[in-house]
Amino acid sequence: MWRLADLAAAVGADLAGDGEVRIRGVATLERAGPDQIAFLANPRYRAQLAGSAAGAVIVAPAERDTGSQPRLLTSNPYACYARVAQLLHPAPRPLAGVHASAVVAADARIAADASVGPMTVVGSGAVIGAGAVIGAGCAIGEGSEVGPGCLLHDRVTLYRECRIGARCVLHAGVVIGADGFGMAWSGSEWLKIPQIGRVLVGDDVEIGANTTIDRGALDDTVIEDGVKLDNLIQIAHNVRIGAHTVIAGCTGISGSTRVGRHCRIGGGVGIVGHVDICDGTTISGFSLITKSITEAGVYTSSIPSQPHREWMHTLAALRGLPELNKTLRDRRRGAPTSPEEGESS
Amino acid sequence: MWRLADLAAAVGADLAGDGEVRIRGVATLERAGPDQIAFLANPRYRAQLAGSAAGAVIVAPAERDTGSQPRLLTSNPYACYARVAQLLHPAPRPLAGVHASAVVAADARIAADASVGPMTVVGSGAVIGAGAVIGAGCAIGEGSEVGPGCLLHDRVTLYRECRIGARCVLHAGVVIGADGFGMAWSGSEWLKIPQIGRVLVGDDVEIGANTTIDRGALDDTVIEDGVKLDNLIQIAHNVRIGAHTVIAGCTGISGSTRVGRHCRIGGGVGIVGHVDICDGTTISGFSLITKSITEAGVYTSSIPSQPHREWMHTLAALRGLPELNKTLRDRRRGAPTSPEEGESS
Amino acid sequence: MWRLADLAAAVGADLAGDGEVRIRGVATLERAGPDQIAFLANPRYRAQLAGSAAGAVIVAPAERDTGSQPRLLTSNPYACYARVAQLLHPAPRPLAGVHASAVVAADARIAADASVGPMTVVGSGAVIGAGAVIGAGCAIGEGSEVGPGCLLHDRVTLYRECRIGARCVLHAGVVIGADGFGMAWSGSEWLKIPQIGRVLVGDDVEIGANTTIDRGALDDTVIEDGVKLDNLIQIAHNVRIGAHTVIAGCTGISGSTRVGRHCRIGGGVGIVGHVDICDGTTISGFSLITKSITEAGVYTSSIPSQPHREWMHTLAALRGLPELNKTLRDRRRGAPTSPEEGESS
Repeated sequence: MWRLADLAAAVGADLAGDGEVRIRGVATLERAGPDQIAFLANPRYRAQLAGSAAGAVIVAPAERDTGSQPRLLTSNPYACYARVAQLLHPAPRPLAGVHASAVVAADARIAADASVGPMTVVGSGAVIGAGAVIGAGCAIGEGSEVGPGCLLHDRVTLYRECRIGARCVLHAGVVIGADGFGMAWSGSEWLKIPQIGRVLVGDDVEIGANTTIDRGALDDTVIEDGVKLDNLIQIAHNVRIGAHTVIAGCTGISGSTRVGRHCRIGGGVGIVGHVDICDGTTISGFSLITKSITEAGVYTSSIPSQPHREWMHTLAALRGLPELNKTLRDRRRGAPTSPEEGESS
Repeated sequence: MWRLADLAAAVGADLAGDGEVRIRGVATLERAGPDQIAFLANPRYRAQLAGSAAGAVIVAPAERDTGSQPRLLTSNPYACYARVAQLLHPAPRPLAGVHASAVVAADARIAADASVGPMTVVGSGAVIGAGAVIGAGCAIGEGSEVGPGCLLHDRVTLYRECRIGARCVLHAGVVIGADGFGMAWSGSEWLKIPQIGRVLVGDDVEIGANTTIDRGALDDTVIEDGVKLDNLIQIAHNVRIGAHTVIAGCTGISGSTRVGRHCRIGGGVGIVGHVDICDGTTISGFSLITKSITEAGVYTSSIPSQPHREWMHTLAALRGLPELNKTLRDRRRGAPTSPEEGESS
Repeated sequence: MWRLADLAAAVGADLAGDGEVRIRGVATLERAGPDQIAFLANPRYRAQLAGSAAGAVIVAPAERDTGSQPRLLTSNPYACYARVAQLLHPAPRPLAGVHASAVVAADARIAADASVGPMTVVGSGAVIGAGAVIGAGCAIGEGSEVGPGCLLHDRVTLYRECRIGARCVLHAGVVIGADGFGMAWSGSEWLKIPQIGRVLVGDDVEIGANTTIDRGALDDTVIEDGVKLDNLIQIAHNVRIGAHTVIAGCTGISGSTRVGRHCRIGGGVGIVGHVDICDGTTISGFSLITKSITEAGVYTSSIPSQPHREWMHTLAALRGLPELNKTLRDRRRGAPTSPEEGESS
C-alpha cells in the first residue's frame, strides 16, 4: 500500500486532492476500485473518468477539474502510469543464491546477490552480474556475461561468448547466439561457414518469448541500449539494431542489415539483408523493406483484406494490368485497334 | 487389437460386413494392411477403395456397396476416423508420480494420479489436476493451474498465475504468460508497463510447438474452450480467442483484439490490435486484417506468386497505377493531351 | 596455428607466396591482422585487398597478382574459405560421457564417445550415435535416434520415434516431432486426429533455433540430406523437403507439400498444403505459393515498401482497378458514356 502523496513524490507528479488515499495497485478506469489507481492518457476516454470508482487517477494537467478523484497531474500520463505501476507491481524476485540443482562451472563468476534457478546450467568462465535473476532451465554458455540487474525468465539459452548488458529482460524460450545462416555452395553440397562473431546486447533491452538473435559470422551482431523486441522475432547474423528501437512480433531481419536508432517497426515485417534503415524510421506492420531507407518517415507495403470475392476481382485486375497498360499505350500511339481504323489512318 | 464390431459400437458407427475382423491401427487406403483400418472422406479418392488391402474402411453410407472390405458407415467419416484413431492410438502415458529430479514447491498441489517429468520445476502454490501429464523440463510458474487430463509436452513454460483448463495439449516450447509488449515513451527511453493480467486457457485447447501467448496488461488474455492453435503463433496481451476457433501456424494477433467463435484463420496471417473479428469468420492464409469484421465470410489479401519477370511487370504496373488513373481522368474531363487538341477545343 | 602451406594442402588450394606464414583464424579483409586469413569472393571488393593487413588471402586464380599477401588460389574462394574456417575454428566439443545430472533410460543406447549434457533426458529405447554431442536441457523422446557426429545444442526437443541422420546440427529450441495440426469437425467440436507418423531427418542437415518440424499424420515427415533450415521455420506434417534445399527464416510450409531438391526459399515465405515444388526452384522472400510449380525458375509475389502516402495512393488505385477495367471495357464496346454520344451512334 502506498500513500498517494508518496507515489506523487516518487514519480515526480503534481498531486491534486487527498494525498492520504492508500493505493494498492493499478487497474483500468472501468474496473478500478477505491484502492487502485487508473490513468487517462487519451482524452477520447474522458467520459470513463466520471464513472470510475478508482481511488485515484493519473491525468494531464488539463484534466485537473474534470472529475472528483484525487489525481496525479503530469504532462505524460502514460509514462507516469508506467512508473507508478512499476512501484506498485515490482517484478517478483526469488531469493539470492544458486539453486542446489543448478550446474555451475567452477570458474563461473556469480554475484553474491544474484539468483540462479533450478535446472539452470552456467558454463565455464560465464559471469552473472550483481542482482541478476536467472530463471529455471536456462543455459548460459561458456564465457557469456549477463549484466547486473538482468532478469532471464525460464528456459533462456545464451550460447558461448555472448554479452547481455545491465537491466535486460529476456523472456522464456529466447535464444541468443545460435549460428547465423551462412554457407557456401561447393558444387555438390552446402558447406557451413563457422560463425565466430558474438551477440552483444546493450543495457535496458527487453527480448520477447521465443525470439532468436544469431551470432555474427565474423564481426558481432549488436543490439544497442534500450531496444525492445517482441515475441518470435528473428534477428540474423551481423545485424545491428540502434538504440531505443522497438520491433513488434513475428518480424524477421536478414543478415548484416543495420536498423537505426528510435525506429518503430511493426509486426510481421521483413527486412532484407545488407541494407541500412536510418534513424527514426517507422515501418508499418506486414510490410517488406528491400532497400536502404535514407529519409525518416513511414514506409508501408501491406494490403488490408477484402471480402474474398472482391479481392479475387482485384487480384485478377492486377494480373491484367501489364496487358491493360500495353493496350492503352498502343491506343495513345495511334496504333490501329481494328482493320477499319487501320485503313482510314 | 480391436474387434471391428467393438470399434463400431465404441464410436457409434453402423457396421457392414464381418465384425470379427481384428484391427490394430489406422493407415491410408494406399498403405493399409489387413489389420489396419482406413477411411474415405472425399469421394474423389473412391478409386483407391477398390485397390486397398485395408482390413476395414470407414465410409459414408453411400459407399456401403462400393467395395468388398468390412466397413463402418457414418455420415461424417473423417470425424469417425478421428475417434477410431484415438481409440487405436492412445497417447502414451508415463506412470503417475513426480520424477525424482523434478523440483516441486512444498505448497504446490499435484494430483495423486498426475505425472511430473524429469527436470520439471513446479512453483509455489501451483496446482496440477487429476491425471495431468507434465513432460520433461517444463516450468510451471507460481500459482499457475494445469487442469485435469492436460498433456504438457517437454519444455513448456507457464509463467506465474496462469490457468490451463481441462484436457488441453501444450506442445514443446510453448510459452504462456510472458509479459505483453507494453511500454510508454518517457521522452528519452521506453518505460516498461508491468503486465499484471493473466492468461486463461479454457478446456480442450491444443497449442502448437513454440507458440507464445502473452499475459494481459491489466485484464487477462483469454483462450476459450476448444480453440486449436498451430505452431509458432503469437498471441499478444489482452487478446480473446473465441471457442472452437482454429488458427494455423506463423500467425500473429496484436494486442486487445477479439476473435470470435468458430473462426478459421489461415497460416501467416496478421491481425492488428484493438479490432473485433465476428463469429464464423474465415481469414485466408497470408492475409492482413486491419479493421473489425462484422459480417461472417471469407477475407483475403494474399497474392500468389508469379514467375519473377512477370511479377516485376505486374509490380511496375501497380506502381504506375496512380499516374495512369490521373491520365485517364484528365482525358475523360476533356483536358488537352496534346497542343493541337488544346487549340481545337 | 596453421602453416599456410598446410592449410593449402588440407583444403586443396594452390599456394602463391610464403607458405610459412602462421594463421590463427579467419577475419574480414578490413579487420584481419597478420595471423589471420581473409577471402575475396566478389571482385567488387577487390579494392579492399590492397589495404588489407591480412596475413594471407583466399582468392580466385585471376587475383594471383592483385596484391602482395601470400594467397590460396581456388576457383571457389567462398567454399574454400568455408573449409579453411572449419579447420581454424572447429566447433568446441565437450568431453565424452553422460553428465551426472542427465536422466537416461536404462535401455537407451549411447555411444561411448558421445556426450550428453546436464539436465538432458533420454527416453527409453533412444539411440545416440558415435561422437554425437547433446547439449544441456535437451529431451530425446522414446525410441528416437540421433545419428553419429550430430550436434544438438541446448534445449532441443525430439519427440518419440523420430530419426536424425549423421552430422546434423540442431540449434537451441528446435522441436522435432510435435503433433501435426490435424483435426476433424464433429459438428460441435474439433476432434484431434492422432499423429502417428514420424519425422525422418537425413544426413548433414542443419536446423535453426526455435524451428519446428511436425511429425506425420500417418506417413512420415521427411527432411532429406543436406537441407539447411534457418530459425523460426514451421514445417507441417507430411511435408517432404528435397536434398540440399535451403530455407531462410520465418517461412512456413503447410501439410503434405513436397519441396524439391536444390531449391532456394527465401525468408517469410508461405507455401500452402498439398502442392509440389519442383527441383531447383527459387522462391523470393515474403512470397506466397498457392499451387504446384512444375518448372524451375524464380517465383515472387512480394511488394517492396513505399513511403506511406504513396503506398496509400497505390493501394486506392488497386482497389479501384476492377471499376476502371469495367469503364474501359464499356468504352471499347462503344457503350455510350454521355447522352450526346448515345444519340449520335
